Amino acid sequence: MLQDLGDLSAIGGRADGGLDRLAWSEADLEGRRWFAQRLRDTGLEVRTDEALNVFGHLAGAGGPFLLTGSHLDSVPSGGRLDGAYGAVAALEVLRTLVESRDPIASQVEVVGFADEEGVRFETGLIGSKALCGELDIESLRGRGDWTGVPIPQVLKTAGVDIDRMNDAARHLPQIDRFLELHIEQGPRMEAQGTNLAIVTGIVGVHRQEVRINGVQNHAGTTPLNMRQDAGRAASRFAADLKGLVQAIDHDAVANVGMMRFEPGAVNVVPGRAEFTVEIRHLEAGVLNRIVGRVEDRLAEICGEESCRFETRLLSDVPGAAMDPGIMATLESVCRQLDRPSTKLWSGAGHDAQVLAGHVPTAMLFVPSRKGVSHAPGEYTDDRHLVLGARALLAAVRAVLANP
Amino acid sequence: MLQDLGDLSAIGGRADGGLDRLAWSEADLEGRRWFAQRLRDTGLEVRTDEALNVFGHLAGAGGPFLLTGSHLDSVPSGGRLDGAYGAVAALEVLRTLVESRDPIASQVEVVGFADEEGVRFETGLIGSKALCGELDIESLRGRGDWTGVPIPQVLKTAGVDIDRMNDAARHLPQIDRFLELHIEQGPRMEAQGTNLAIVTGIVGVHRQEVRINGVQNHAGTTPLNMRQDAGRAASRFAADLKGLVQAIDHDAVANVGMMRFEPGAVNVVPGRAEFTVEIRHLEAGVLNRIVGRVEDRLAEICGEESCRFETRLLSDVPGAAMDPGIMATLESVCRQLDRPSTKLWSGAGHDAQVLAGHVPTAMLFVPSRKGVSHAPGEYTDDRHLVLGARALLAAVRAVLANP
Repeated sequence: MLQDLGDLSAIGGRADGGLDRLAWSEADLEGRRWFAQRLRDTGLEVRTDEALNVFGHLAGAGGPFLLTGSHLDSVPSGGRLDGAYGAVAALEVLRTLVESRDPIASQVEVVGFADEEGVRFETGLIGSKALCGELDIESLRGRGDWTGVPIPQVLKTAGVDIDRMNDAARHLPQIDRFLELHIEQGPRMEAQGTNLAIVTGIVGVHRQEVRINGVQNHAGTTPLNMRQDAGRAASRFAADLKGLVQAIDHDAVANVGMMRFEPGAVNVVPGRAEFTVEIRHLEAGVLNRIVGRVEDRLAEICGEESCRFETRLLSDVPGAAMDPGIMATLESVCRQLDRPSTKLWSGAGHDAQVLAGHVPTAMLFVPSRKGVSHAPGEYTDDRHLVLGARALLAAVRAVLANP
Repeated sequence: MLQDLGDLSAIGGRADGGLDRLAWSEADLEGRRWFAQRLRDTGLEVRTDEALNVFGHLAGAGGPFLLTGSHLDSVPSGGRLDGAYGAVAALEVLRTLVESRDPIASQVEVVGFADEEGVRFETGLIGSKALCGELDIESLRGRGDWTGVPIPQVLKTAGVDIDRMNDAARHLPQIDRFLELHIEQGPRMEAQGTNLAIVTGIVGVHRQEVRINGVQNHAGTTPLNMRQDAGRAASRFAADLKGLVQAIDHDAVANVGMMRFEPGAVNVVPGRAEFTVEIRHLEAGVLNRIVGRVEDRLAEICGEESCRFETRLLSDVPGAAMDPGIMATLESVCRQLDRPSTKLWSGAGHDAQVLAGHVPTAMLFVPSRKGVSHAPGEYTDDRHLVLGARALLAAVRAVLANP
């Protein structure tokens, strides 16, 4: 498995140890061909669906399958483990079952999903959504990628017909469970000193853009108390956000990732400020309380600074709970392999959150060094990678033993 | 004078009432030709120097002159009065003296300065600095304008030889005083209900760029208390700046005009934030105290947020006091024309601050509606414009009567 991971990360690999395998790029397509070939080498029957998700199961097996895997695409300048690890570990699990002639091998299917990251079209989970028939094709059709090329054309170049992507869902009835192994991408396991974690759920994510309008003015001639400084109002909000969120719930996270003042000159009081706010929490109730408080705080600050504000919803993806039955199985599996397991919610999105709406779904995490992900420095010890794959194998066996 | 002002503002005029006469642009060069022609129409001898400053005085007069005028260039999308008013009013004053055959006409020279605004090359006061032999030509030579064109080439296109610009200073010995009439560009006179103000000095301006380095991270998986969020640190500083400045001096102003987070994505904790800080005050001591406190506060916040910061000095222009003798003369002139005069410091830079280092210099202000300047909405009542020109005429007469 470690050899496979090394071979796969050479495709789109960067000199700094990172990875460029943006969804449906040449490197991504090459990675999918490599993955399909490795499935074939294991004696599996391979199928690439309308979204370019790659599947493999024993020839002649008709399902329903326990599906396991993750995504093969990466963010630009990403790490070699995010996604690829779960796909390659799934291959290793089925290969082990096949090689040991375990009869449950025919009940397992491996998947390498397409475009989980969503960097290319400002969305994501496209592969798993296509599999689940959830893809909003109309909303994709009218838009372009970040370079302005229309999405249908980007897809066509990669050999994908946008109109047929939801046909991938024909396969869904043959899947009755989903298990995904992934790196944590956060620092909590390392801080706790745990090697395996069972994911309780994947957070809901609310994203909005805020625009504050003040009055652009001369920064030398306008006294501080006579300004309507949009930049000051935006900065005050961004400075308050952490305290505001923690006062409501300590597990919630929020981020101001983009901030821009206009006109953006050293000697001009900003007439406009634009920034994004992202809020994540497992429970919709908590998420909505924070969103409400954000709105209230913006109104208070803009009142004090004589500015006006408007917000634009960018996206609002609900959280997804993992299946309690499979979680219990994972708990006993982890207990046998390692110290008592940890339970964690996932702050990042995963293909599992889409599958969870259709079939019993669960996830396992291994630690990320210093919590670094979406960066070349993403790293997990080989012994943790191997432990995670062993846990996945044991979990597949345990789940299929207790159907 | 009002007719002249209307004619001049048609050159580079915008449909929204604003003005585009960026230094050494085609419109600016046309404005200079128009101004030179109006000087000639008045029977004056016209000279355009190596920086394209335009001068006019009575043919045969040898100086020394009381110089009066202002600049002819504008910021992009600026107003029709900033600079142009003082130049056109100076022309009107000398025209009045010439037409009334006043013998002091031969002691007055009118000027339309080049590139006061400094938008094109991120500096400014180039025309008046050239006149005073203060231009740092080496620092200009290696740089480009905002579109990347080398400065010497921009200048050459406009007919200016960068190597010869300081030759303009040959004329300086013929100037023994400078008087500049300008709009306030701030809201203080309107708020006080005064129509004329005597400028006590022009503030010193300290500009720096701050870069805060944190750690770029996943905004879903990194708990709030484990972040090194450069954007949060920058926002906290910008939110604190007003209070920090007012605690030291209520006349001081400060501005964060530009703010940028990197990488600037909705779901990424900013690893870097960059912003500008500008601080203005008349007294170097106060300015330095604020600069020191800014540094301390950055260190405190970055300590709390586990970030590092570095600052880069953009410019540090000392304040300039106006001449007490001419100020006293202006006071009695204003008293005769209007209610008791106000005294104000200028928060904006002006050509007068350069001249003040070489000859006794003073400035008069008329009010700006709502303090708006550097914007198409810049406006001053015609009666205030006329009052200002009458005050300038009376001041020229009074100054030359009491040499």
